[in-house]
Amino acid sequence: MAALFRGSRSLLLRWNKHVNLAYVSMRSMASKTPVGFVGLGNMGSPMAKNLLKNGYPVIATDVFPESCKELQETGAQVVDSPAEVAEKADRIITMLPSSPNVKEVYTGPNGILKKVKKGTLLIDSSTIDPAVSKEMAIAAEKMGAVFMDAPVSGGVGAANMAKLTFMVGGVEEEYHAAQELLTCMGANVVYCGQVGTGQAAKICNNMLLAIGMIGTAETMNLGIRLGLDPKLLAKILNMSSGRCWSSDTYNPVPGVMEGVPSANNYQGGFGTTLMAKDLGLAQTTATNTKTPIPLGSLAHQIFRVMCSRGYANKDFSSVFQFLREEEGQ
Amino acid sequence: MAALFRGSRSLLLRWNKHVNLAYVSMRSMASKTPVGFVGLGNMGSPMAKNLLKNGYPVIATDVFPESCKELQETGAQVVDSPAEVAEKADRIITMLPSSPNVKEVYTGPNGILKKVKKGTLLIDSSTIDPAVSKEMAIAAEKMGAVFMDAPVSGGVGAANMAKLTFMVGGVEEEYHAAQELLTCMGANVVYCGQVGTGQAAKICNNMLLAIGMIGTAETMNLGIRLGLDPKLLAKILNMSSGRCWSSDTYNPVPGVMEGVPSANNYQGGFGTTLMAKDLGLAQTTATNTKTPIPLGSLAHQIFRVMCSRGYANKDFSSVFQFLREEEGQ
Amino acid sequence: MAALFRGSRSLLLRWNKHVNLAYVSMRSMASKTPVGFVGLGNMGSPMAKNLLKNGYPVIATDVFPESCKELQETGAQVVDSPAEVAEKADRIITMLPSSPNVKEVYTGPNGILKKVKKGTLLIDSSTIDPAVSKEMAIAAEKMGAVFMDAPVSGGVGAANMAKLTFMVGGVEEEYHAAQELLTCMGANVVYCGQVGTGQAAKICNNMLLAIGMIGTAETMNLGIRLGLDPKLLAKILNMSSGRCWSSDTYNPVPGVMEGVPSANNYQGGFGTTLMAKDLGLAQTTATNTKTPIPLGSLAHQIFRVMCSRGYANKDFSSVFQFLREEEGQ
Amino acid sequence: MAALFRGSRSLLLRWNKHVNLAYVSMRSMASKTPVGFVGLGNMGSPMAKNLLKNGYPVIATDVFPESCKELQETGAQVVDSPAEVAEKADRIITMLPSSPNVKEVYTGPNGILKKVKKGTLLIDSSTIDPAVSKEMAIAAEKMGAVFMDAPVSGGVGAANMAKLTFMVGGVEEEYHAAQELLTCMGANVVYCGQVGTGQAAKICNNMLLAIGMIGTAETMNLGIRLGLDPKLLAKILNMSSGRCWSSDTYNPVPGVMEGVPSANNYQGGFGTTLMAKDLGLAQTTATNTKTPIPLGSLAHQIFRVMCSRGYANKDFSSVFQFLREEEGQ
Repeated sequence: MAALFRGSRSLLLRWNKHVNLAYVSMRSMASKTPVGFVGLGNMGSPMAKNLLKNGYPVIATDVFPESCKELQETGAQVVDSPAEVAEKADRIITMLPSSPNVKEVYTGPNGILKKVKKGTLLIDSSTIDPAVSKEMAIAAEKMGAVFMDAPVSGGVGAANMAKLTFMVGGVEEEYHAAQELLTCMGANVVYCGQVGTGQAAKICNNMLLAIGMIGTAETMNLGIRLGLDPKLLAKILNMSSGRCWSSDTYNPVPGVMEGVPSANNYQGGFGTTLMAKDLGLAQTTATNTKTPIPLGSLAHQIFRVMCSRGYANKDFSSVFQFLREEEGQ
Repeated sequence: MAALFRGSRSLLLRWNKHVNLAYVSMRSMASKTPVGFVGLGNMGSPMAKNLLKNGYPVIATDVFPESCKELQETGAQVVDSPAEVAEKADRIITMLPSSPNVKEVYTGPNGILKKVKKGTLLIDSSTIDPAVSKEMAIAAEKMGAVFMDAPVSGGVGAANMAKLTFMVGGVEEEYHAAQELLTCMGANVVYCGQVGTGQAAKICNNMLLAIGMIGTAETMNLGIRLGLDPKLLAKILNMSSGRCWSSDTYNPVPGVMEGVPSANNYQGGFGTTLMAKDLGLAQTTATNTKTPIPLGSLAHQIFRVMCSRGYANKDFSSVFQFLREEEGQ
Repeated sequence: MAALFRGSRSLLLRWNKHVNLAYVSMRSMASKTPVGFVGLGNMGSPMAKNLLKNGYPVIATDVFPESCKELQETGAQVVDSPAEVAEKADRIITMLPSSPNVKEVYTGPNGILKKVKKGTLLIDSSTIDPAVSKEMAIAAEKMGAVFMDAPVSGGVGAANMAKLTFMVGGVEEEYHAAQELLTCMGANVVYCGQVGTGQAAKICNNMLLAIGMIGTAETMNLGIRLGLDPKLLAKILNMSSGRCWSSDTYNPVPGVMEGVPSANNYQGGFGTTLMAKDLGLAQTTATNTKTPIPLGSLAHQIFRVMCSRGYANKDFSSVFQFLREEEGQ
Repeated sequence: MAALFRGSRSLLLRWNKHVNLAYVSMRSMASKTPVGFVGLGNMGSPMAKNLLKNGYPVIATDVFPESCKELQETGAQVVDSPAEVAEKADRIITMLPSSPNVKEVYTGPNGILKKVKKGTLLIDSSTIDPAVSKEMAIAAEKMGAVFMDAPVSGGVGAANMAKLTFMVGGVEEEYHAAQELLTCMGANVVYCGQVGTGQAAKICNNMLLAIGMIGTAETMNLGIRLGLDPKLLAKILNMSSGRCWSSDTYNPVPGVMEGVPSANNYQGGFGTTLMAKDLGLAQTTATNTKTPIPLGSLAHQIFRVMCSRGYANKDFSSVFQFLREEEGQ
């Protein structure tokens, strides 16, 4: 994490790191001590349950009492605020909708950092701007705690089955401590580098996924209009250089594959509004780093228009339907 | 092919088809009779040589005498015009740079159709507008000949090693006759449907390839600027939903893979100008069929600008270099 | 027109030009002799009527008998085919939907060029690919006739009131002869250069118009969402460097201006489908001349998607409505 | 400004507003009392000088001592920090490069708000994210001060000649107090609405300007390649619906107009890097408000790529040169 800091602060930080590492070793030995969990939504709730299944006591909170109550019934201890979680647990996982929620939960008046104990390991699995992850890491470090970003890929189904993929950014020395918890909730845990790189990896993957999906939808539509059978076209693409995950695993054309949202009227899957959110993050990071992303940017705009035109809650592969000529035109 | 025609002509055509099929069976039995070849460029020349290697006498022509001379030295008979080729061969393969050349070679004053014999099988391996393929098929049918489009994927190397992929459009009854010849020059031969669908498949594949490549270049560049190691990012994408041929087989970032143009200063491979040409065809067919292709269209424009900025002869994966911030900026 | 030809043909052509010019002078003197008119649609019909009003006998034809009958009742002589028009008139105006129609009317089996008299002046007011205009000019020249392209701007209202603008391409010596007729139907006649440049000017104007309109729609929508009053925003843009025809004369936001389609639920005006057609021509000419048009190309795609989503017959300024968040989202 | 707040805070705020207004009236009467100025760059320095010319004592600061010294020589009092400016002036103007600078100058450890007097009028002429303007307004209000955003259009030349245009957002009651100062530095002062709308107007104008400029460059390039004379094409566009500020006042094609950057090898004018910055703000506000801006977004990417390819310091109309085919290609 040294790269985040410069000049005269580094000595102090190095000292802090020693302190932190001492706490860390205590933590690693003390397994099955309570784990804090903030954010019990569609994703967070099954993740917390998987910690419980693995024998970890869970101390949880959420702004919605219903979510808390449900988790309480499966054995978790519910408290009133993120600050209170921080008082009672020295490993805390957060799973929140967006950057402002993360800021509030960490640095707000009842936030984690108000009561965090020195050496606490903070793992944020929200998908947010990596610049905010870096801000949180700096704020945590000031309190003697360690912050890591660990956004997930895989949806609610994967969360239920503990099959998520975690992309982890943060100091390498803490990675194994994080991995111990994350493997209870996911099938793959990948260390990506310094704080924020977990978010970066997630954002990058989803941007390329979005481009590949729209590209596949355009290509399939064009081919069909030129007289090609869609199944045959998919087969040709998949044995050639046009191949991508959207063409061979999640084809957007109804009738080409089974068990994908296009086979089920674009229900389930990954909503257009969620993809638009992730592309908004890609756009923001690209704008802030002055990186040109012409296709990523246009993909963002297309999913944004789709949200305006009634596709917000359909799976993002419904872009095929959006681009296709309407019946009777 | 009936779908190409309407109304009162269909009866005549059905009759023609019977005549053609009679000729066809004669052809299929008469293997190792001469094969005509028009267009002896970088691709056509090794293709014709592979026919010679397989024992087929080749009767060839090209506008460049040097190209003819070279093939003559390997055993082909060289004649003066496509018309003369048509007089001497009842199976003819054409491999030409673009639509106007194809029109000239088939329907020009010294074109194939001026002298074509009834029942001749005409296979065009050029990559052109499928609408022109359909025109040529209609013109050929009027002369009692059969036209198929069979564009290739794979470059000069694949042509030399007889490892091309052929995407074939035309009447299904003729497909096996075409296949007999094409397998001498390629490793895969795929039947795509009616005339023009070979072109359609080729165009579709290359459009999605172009989108995937630019998308991969943008994504890798963004990730690197966000602090990710390029090899690690490629690995993460390739095990996730961002995976595509450009990320896992032909990565555009120097240092990520070996044996690809990005490892060799973007020399060799598939030139930007050729990709721009194929995207021009995608654009034209999409415009003519009123199909929206927002990403395909933007990909076209990006490769077009690259051609204007000095990237014409570099491999198309040099889009990574084009998008990346220049040193010292 | 010499630039269109090369080498040994030029001498012959120069001779032909002398012959043509001799005929031309005869024509110019012989005013009020019959004028031929092919294509009596929404635009062609009022144009032909304006010729009649100016005292020109009109000899007309159209594929729809109803259109012919209506014009006959206002005094025109109706004949059966373009060829017959060519037999009876040495100045002919054509106004047709698209390139294939123009090809058919000029070079088809009953086309003008089958019976055209030497020295006839052919004026095509259709909006088509300038490459087709050049083809027609070459074909006409072979028959000793002169072809000019003269597409119009201004819609049905302008056609009725003889307020069209004509953009004229062709040999300069013929321009005044053309102008004599065109001024009966339009308020502005602009000479643009060699054959095809009339089309080029029309296509260029409409491409920039399309870009300006979508840009204005995006900008107004963004400003409104950022809390600006739309009328105030329009006023600020129009006194600043954001000013364009779409912001100051044809504003797409309901309530900002009166007397424009946005004030009338986007009825009337210039249909999205027509704009998509013109952008298709821009796309085709840009592709053929290898010219990058990133915004023009994206504008094309946006209007194409709008056609697929139910906006085909609304005024093209309805792009504001298309981009705006739907109620209740 | 009430719309910025909700619920129980509104009563307090209303009370605050009364207090503020009392101070305001004192200020308005006390004209020619000192004006604070923070940010003495290329724009700020001539702006501050124009205040001095109009008889206002100026108390200024900047991070660069050279900038301070220069202004000191023309009669300003220079102090060490924004906080000190706030101690000595109850009207303060800030002119800073970007959002982080504005945050630092207002809310940093030596920032204005550390020492601001109740009732002080704070006018920020920086071009920044309107969300940051709103944040600053809330922070200022907490201290009993009033914040307005007043970004400018017009460059260094206009700043020197006091010919800037100010777009002002903030409480309407304060507008006249702001206007008194702004008219010393600008020719036009436009009230846009609540805090942030000045920024919104500026961003909207520049986004539409960027789109119009690229559109004009594409269109002129296409027309030239289709055989049109550039001056004639500009004339046709400017009398038609393609007309925009970039075509009629700032044409990007060398030789079409005099006195514009395209006539001077794209030197002077408005640098590509500045336009890219403003489009970055448009992108960010659009992303944050979930507003689709397909053309604005693509314009952003194009100027961003131009910055990577050596056009950063050329006038933004050099996009014509960027898109044009290189010599010899």
